[in-house]
Amino acid sequence: MYSVTVRDHVMVAHSFRGEVFGPAQRLHGATFVVDATFSGERLDDDGIVVDIGRAAEELHAVLADLNYRNLDDEPDLAGQNSTTERVARLVADRLADRITAGALGPAAGALAGLKVTLHESHVAWASYERAL
Amino acid sequence: MYSVTVRDHVMVAHSFRGEVFGPAQRLHGATFVVDATFSGERLDDDGIVVDIGRAAEELHAVLADLNYRNLDDEPDLAGQNSTTERVARLVADRLADRITAGALGPAAGALAGLKVTLHESHVAWASYERAL
Amino acid sequence: MYSVTVRDHVMVAHSFRGEVFGPAQRLHGATFVVDATFSGERLDDDGIVVDIGRAAEELHAVLADLNYRNLDDEPDLAGQNSTTERVARLVADRLADRITAGALGPAAGALAGLKVTLHESHVAWASYERAL
Amino acid sequence: MYSVTVRDHVMVAHSFRGEVFGPAQRLHGATFVVDATFSGERLDDDGIVVDIGRAAEELHAVLADLNYRNLDDEPDLAGQNSTTERVARLVADRLADRITAGALGPAAGALAGLKVTLHESHVAWASYERAL
Amino acid sequence: MYSVTVRDHVMVAHSFRGEVFGPAQRLHGATFVVDATFSGERLDDDGIVVDIGRAAEELHAVLADLNYRNLDDEPDLAGQNSTTERVARLVADRLADRITAGALGPAAGALAGLKVTLHESHVAWASYERAL
Amino acid sequence: MYSVTVRDHVMVAHSFRGEVFGPAQRLHGATFVVDATFSGERLDDDGIVVDIGRAAEELHAVLADLNYRNLDDEPDLAGQNSTTERVARLVADRLADRITAGALGPAAGALAGLKVTLHESHVAWASYERAL
Repeated sequence: MYSVTVRDHVMVAHSFRGEVFGPAQRLHGATFVVDATFSGERLDDDGIVVDIGRAAEELHAVLADLNYRNLDDEPDLAGQNSTTERVARLVADRLADRITAGALGPAAGALAGLKVTLHESHVAWASYERAL
Repeated sequence: MYSVTVRDHVMVAHSFRGEVFGPAQRLHGATFVVDATFSGERLDDDGIVVDIGRAAEELHAVLADLNYRNLDDEPDLAGQNSTTERVARLVADRLADRITAGALGPAAGALAGLKVTLHESHVAWASYERAL
Repeated sequence: MYSVTVRDHVMVAHSFRGEVFGPAQRLHGATFVVDATFSGERLDDDGIVVDIGRAAEELHAVLADLNYRNLDDEPDLAGQNSTTERVARLVADRLADRITAGALGPAAGALAGLKVTLHESHVAWASYERAL
Repeated sequence: MYSVTVRDHVMVAHSFRGEVFGPAQRLHGATFVVDATFSGERLDDDGIVVDIGRAAEELHAVLADLNYRNLDDEPDLAGQNSTTERVARLVADRLADRITAGALGPAAGALAGLKVTLHESHVAWASYERAL
Repeated sequence: MYSVTVRDHVMVAHSFRGEVFGPAQRLHGATFVVDATFSGERLDDDGIVVDIGRAAEELHAVLADLNYRNLDDEPDLAGQNSTTERVARLVADRLADRITAGALGPAAGALAGLKVTLHESHVAWASYERAL
Repeated sequence: MYSVTVRDHVMVAHSFRGEVFGPAQRLHGATFVVDATFSGERLDDDGIVVDIGRAAEELHAVLADLNYRNLDDEPDLAGQNSTTERVARLVADRLADRITAGALGPAAGALAGLKVTLHESHVAWASYERAL
């Protein structure tokens, strides 16, 4: 199995509902350093799993829609806590939609899986992994 | 699949028995930077795999029992080399016991797996992965 | 010259005023991974520049006052942008006040300088350095 | 499942053929920071998955054959682009050949899998994973 | 003293002349992860040492002129080895020229120093530091 | 000012005397990831501050004398705590002695300073800086 990972980041505000979150119920924020891993069993004729430049552009585009914003106002997360886990899934699902729509070109047809990891600090991170 | 990882560390002395270890047969030591990854298929109603604060506390508690000690004196490793692999398993199994005993609360019931990685330097690390 | 550095982090919301900030004028947030470096020409009788445990506790205490908050509401930054540079200085000055008040014990009397670095992402950080 | 990872690096020149590569069609180069992960279900009597010292030596030997070279001249990659994915596989396959030939000793008989990750920068990396 | 650092990278081929370089006399390559640190005694009215966005753009522009190239063909390094030290200086001097030409705006007038660090691997890096 | 840094590591046991150390008075251990920075105002005719290969070898040789040992038995630290600060100085002084004895060759004559940083974990490190 081959995989390619690209890294970018996003800076957001948010707050959580639920006693489990303690002081994180207050409005605060996070830098999420985001790793998107694209995997597949085969390389294409150019010798790649995915065009790493386009993969980076697509990740950047997905993050641009979230960047410098308060996630409490994000419609796709309405009524939900924008936990690191949920944002990881949101980013993964939006990337998957773009791939399905052809954003990574025909070579991406051989992609089998996608994993998105959000590092919220140097001591905590969360991931969401799904099939493509 | 979702996962959440927390990082902590422990500083221990130990020595190894067996020619394969060369100079590491002498009493020496290590800082293990420890990553514990909790994974599950579903998020709970709060939107989390596991309460990241409690996960960090449980990892810290497990490591506190080993910290600033000579692992050659650790009863659970009697007669065994405290290799990075073995200590990774020891930490994972003790975390699993705590989870089973309810340390992470009812939400942890949806946890499926646990992976513990010990970084012994910037160029070497070992992991142990198990089901929950 | 000797120095000791401890690392911690803080998660905050904020917004900036000024066209130079572009989209960062909107309410957003950041994880600041914070390094505090304490330096001095001499070691004390125990062989340390500063008690690393107490240094970590003092840094943690200073960050706790900022953590999980919206820095737009921080009185010490009223009328000012809470840029990474300014927050680095705020943390450094508050640490210096604590040191002057004796928080690090008598050994800290030999400390000569303090540098605080805030990493706002994997690709950007800012520092403030001052005498003690 | 246990695993052990060792890290080393290699510095190479190369160029790519194919419009997808844009400016990377020109002769350029890369530092690949290489992680080799050896995994198995059991530890041997010494308590290890693999002798970490020998694992590091074998990885170093495989990389020494590529180091300080122009990969456009590498016979095993003739007619192929030396993409990060392909070099990851090349390193993994050469390591696997050495393991099969006994380079890691009899304990390596319990190894089940091998994963090689090449970091081409702080924001991009690729992996190849295979059975042993 | 305040400082702001931005990170980017460049991928180049090159070769060295001189027995001291051993196998690095052959054509090979490197990824340089580049940190540019801008320092000054004062913040401007916006609370910044330098517009971090523009700083990142200027660093990217300087690196774009070197990226995906063979540094043996770089006119500014003709007759010289493109060692990590020399490339660090080249990047610093080109950044300084841009700052002098106004690329970072009037606020940059308060900048006092510039340091450029090139990481050639996870175990080696070089810096060049100069006044502005 | 130019500088070159090389990284290596050492794994040691030790214990501390003094109430300030709390549980670290017990026999424990540490991995020290060690960065040695060599600085000078000029490059030699080859374009280097110091031969990075020889610098790495000298650092490795200095660390080899400490590696896989109990620092409580180190004669040069007799009656002293082997704190991270002290070990940083010990490594720096031993490197300086080697440089004075010609270990880095004649080019090293232009070296002006040496800084050694020991990372004892991902959240704490100490340095010692001296002239050459």
